[in-house]
Amino acid sequence: MPANYRQTGGITMSANMLKNAAGRSVPDTVNGKPVVPYMGLDKYRPQGIHQSPRITTNIDYPADGNKRVASLKEALKCAGLRDGMTISTHHHFREGDLVANMVFDCASELGVKDLCWFPSASFPCHAYLLKYLDDGTISHIEGSMNGPLGRYCSEGKMRKTAVLRSHGGRYQAIQDGEVKIDIAVIGAGCADPFGNANGVYGPSASGLLGFALADSRYADKVIVVTDNLIPFPCIPWQIQGNYVDFTVQVDRVGIPEKIVSGTTEITRSPDRLMIAEMTARFCDVAGIISDGFSFQAGAGGTSLSVGNCFAEIMRKKGIKARFARGGSNKYLVNMLEEGLVEYILDGQTFDLDGVRSIRDNPRHVMTSPFTSYNFHSKGNFASMVDVVILGATEVDLNFNANVVTHSDGYLLHGLGGWQNCLFGKTVILPLPLFRDRIPVIKDEVTTLCGPGQLIDVIITERGIAINPLRTDLIKKVKGSGLPVKSLSQLKKEAESICGLPEKPVFTDKIVAAIKWVDGTVIDVVRQVVREGKE
Amino acid sequence: MPANYRQTGGITMSANMLKNAAGRSVPDTVNGKPVVPYMGLDKYRPQGIHQSPRITTNIDYPADGNKRVASLKEALKCAGLRDGMTISTHHHFREGDLVANMVFDCASELGVKDLCWFPSASFPCHAYLLKYLDDGTISHIEGSMNGPLGRYCSEGKMRKTAVLRSHGGRYQAIQDGEVKIDIAVIGAGCADPFGNANGVYGPSASGLLGFALADSRYADKVIVVTDNLIPFPCIPWQIQGNYVDFTVQVDRVGIPEKIVSGTTEITRSPDRLMIAEMTARFCDVAGIISDGFSFQAGAGGTSLSVGNCFAEIMRKKGIKARFARGGSNKYLVNMLEEGLVEYILDGQTFDLDGVRSIRDNPRHVMTSPFTSYNFHSKGNFASMVDVVILGATEVDLNFNANVVTHSDGYLLHGLGGWQNCLFGKTVILPLPLFRDRIPVIKDEVTTLCGPGQLIDVIITERGIAINPLRTDLIKKVKGSGLPVKSLSQLKKEAESICGLPEKPVFTDKIVAAIKWVDGTVIDVVRQVVREGKE
Repeated sequence: MPANYRQTGGITMSANMLKNAAGRSVPDTVNGKPVVPYMGLDKYRPQGIHQSPRITTNIDYPADGNKRVASLKEALKCAGLRDGMTISTHHHFREGDLVANMVFDCASELGVKDLCWFPSASFPCHAYLLKYLDDGTISHIEGSMNGPLGRYCSEGKMRKTAVLRSHGGRYQAIQDGEVKIDIAVIGAGCADPFGNANGVYGPSASGLLGFALADSRYADKVIVVTDNLIPFPCIPWQIQGNYVDFTVQVDRVGIPEKIVSGTTEITRSPDRLMIAEMTARFCDVAGIISDGFSFQAGAGGTSLSVGNCFAEIMRKKGIKARFARGGSNKYLVNMLEEGLVEYILDGQTFDLDGVRSIRDNPRHVMTSPFTSYNFHSKGNFASMVDVVILGATEVDLNFNANVVTHSDGYLLHGLGGWQNCLFGKTVILPLPLFRDRIPVIKDEVTTLCGPGQLIDVIITERGIAINPLRTDLIKKVKGSGLPVKSLSQLKKEAESICGLPEKPVFTDKIVAAIKWVDGTVIDVVRQVVREGKE
Repeated sequence: MPANYRQTGGITMSANMLKNAAGRSVPDTVNGKPVVPYMGLDKYRPQGIHQSPRITTNIDYPADGNKRVASLKEALKCAGLRDGMTISTHHHFREGDLVANMVFDCASELGVKDLCWFPSASFPCHAYLLKYLDDGTISHIEGSMNGPLGRYCSEGKMRKTAVLRSHGGRYQAIQDGEVKIDIAVIGAGCADPFGNANGVYGPSASGLLGFALADSRYADKVIVVTDNLIPFPCIPWQIQGNYVDFTVQVDRVGIPEKIVSGTTEITRSPDRLMIAEMTARFCDVAGIISDGFSFQAGAGGTSLSVGNCFAEIMRKKGIKARFARGGSNKYLVNMLEEGLVEYILDGQTFDLDGVRSIRDNPRHVMTSPFTSYNFHSKGNFASMVDVVILGATEVDLNFNANVVTHSDGYLLHGLGGWQNCLFGKTVILPLPLFRDRIPVIKDEVTTLCGPGQLIDVIITERGIAINPLRTDLIKKVKGSGLPVKSLSQLKKEAESICGLPEKPVFTDKIVAAIKWVDGTVIDVVRQVVREGKE
């Protein structure tokens, strides 16, 4: 690793800045590796072949299938942990994850440095790892960051540049060899000594383990960690032991009440409820809610409310949906059990009803970023979903949207599956016109995460803006009485109430690169100038 | 392709013959490609990396997921079918398969020549393809052959050398890049337009599709053919549409009554019944039938009977098996439903009870050659099975066994999962001492398929031979009254009844190579000299 990485933090001085197809200035290298600037929708054609794991042989693995080693530290040693490696974890335990913190405790005890942490997402519980970012155990994070780690990154404290990818983009990056995982550590609610694992049983049940699928397939070494070791076979084997090198039993892999919080409830805010109702009405008027349709509503309070409104309309019409795309929770499970939805194609379960349902109901289907989101594939099902309800922190007048930074410039959210879901047939963002007196509609989004061509409708408490590209939708809702307005009209209304917000101030330093679903760089995040600090 | 292939048929004259670790004379090249002679158990260490598919992009696939093309011929054209390609099919439809024959009808109509057919197995119904072997549409078969095609091969009529692999060896060969599949054609009892497919629904339900898993993952182009197209999503997706290029709807993919024949019944032969009972008694005395044990009994009449005897013993002892390895049928399903077996880990279903059970019972688990058999992996579960009951056409005095040729030299059977199952903890071959007055125990097997070190016990109607390597078993059954004898003693008894059988006469021409589970060549099959013909 060149010495100048640490001196400059993030992008080396030698990186050239280029304007990508979205007009964003991005570097041609990130952490010393060449990257491709975003070339526009459906423009970048990947070359080459998939990443190939080494051929292994059963000679090197115990014939009785018992791959247990005494501790996680031992397993990491056996896996050859050393300076500069890339270590992956998954985020199915969400805010209750104990595994990632354990991994880097071990690395620190072993004196290993400069690790790249490659989680499928990080959460506030991982603020614990700040000390390891400080002391150089971890050089940087390539993965979506929620909260404190994003703030740390935004303040320019990370030694290298963070790279944020969507769930599908993460699969793509692993598959295409952009990221080579040296050691994958996969926490599981249930596992057997051979390494077969699932998330549906045990005190730390997380529902699925699909975010770790690519890790299991492509990592050089794979460690499964569980607090619930059962005799072979662990069924279902969401993670297949044939990919696993070592298994470890620990006291706890997660904090149950934080894994499935069960706290996500339908919004009670009158404004949000109104937005949700307007969203459902829009879909109805536009003819989207028809027999055999499909939808993804999401798990936030407003989205849940949209799902509820959908259910009402479906009951009235006597129709059902062919499938709903999860994240799942009790509301969606109710719809499945009521027969309003034929299948849930699930990526993660958000509560215990979701876990129970995916465990017991064959129509509640486990998916992975491979089946749902990978863009370097032969298609995926994200583009088959009729209507997708998503959030955003900001949108601009061209329907471009931001989902990772706030208007103060801080990187506080991950991309999740958001970019991947933009390929749905109709993409709707129900948004409050302002949050904490900061308008959501901007001249230019702080960070570009999704191109406006893919975002069809913005629904706010003061009106609905339809992307001019969707002449079909505009036609369909004409005369419906729905308050259709232009984005600039909505922007003006917000600014007349809140005034013009202050713009964040950045240094030149790039702290994070934002990848598009095809692995190209769609934007970067720069270091925030903190008041009185710089 | 060098011209001398067709002149010589099979191995080129330039191939050097080497003696492998089993003492068999094998060539150093097969069909012009270098091969590694068998090096002994656990001696060959693979080098290199897995075969890598090209990176594809969703840009090239329909966003609505509809990959249907009008006909199989059209799909083959779209997939770029041309001379010399390798085309794969699976054998889940067994004797009722219509897909492979259709594929080569299309190829013939398109005037394509010199195709390598790479089935997971072929059956007598594929004798239809002899005309395409004759006219050069198909140059040769790499895959297990049951019946007429094997006979054709044995008579030296195939233009190139056949290569036989076990189910696990086939997965290994694809994974390791030994075989590059250009086009995989996957027949399915149920599929959606995206290419998700399963074998549990529809008139041509075959239970599983696991034998096509490697094909779907590694082939350059993948075509799913079904007679039962349903709207997305086809659940379960045993084959994932994300690997699929084209889907085709046809009238029929299989003949139902020949797919699940339902005819396999417990043997009524008193000799076979006695062998079965002795096998079960041996396992009981040896302490193998204990709570939580695992077994694979197989689907032949004798094996079914062994399974029944196991059930009796388990009921008496009040114990259950942790898992049974399928092929499944009504007998094994009954054991699952009675609670004698906790899980069936199934590779193929042999009757409608098997299909029903794997569709409806989450404890009846779909496996694939990847999870069960692949030797170039990080272990597989074949080596975890406590006792495995297998067949053989011949054994020699060192417990080496043959499963592909008869004592007349004809290649009439495939390897199936037989080699892979030899890794079970105790491997028992219950065999009649002679068949059609031909003794089963030989000085030397006609074709070596499995090394004697892996075969523990031979059980015949006239006595039991235990491999001297298994001193533990010898000790356990001592004093049990079981008729333990040496193999040579059993051989003498057979020969005293039947006389010494005639030896088959072969030409020098190698017509088939037999691979070991690690891809090395354990033996070859030579052209049979037919009486009065050569």
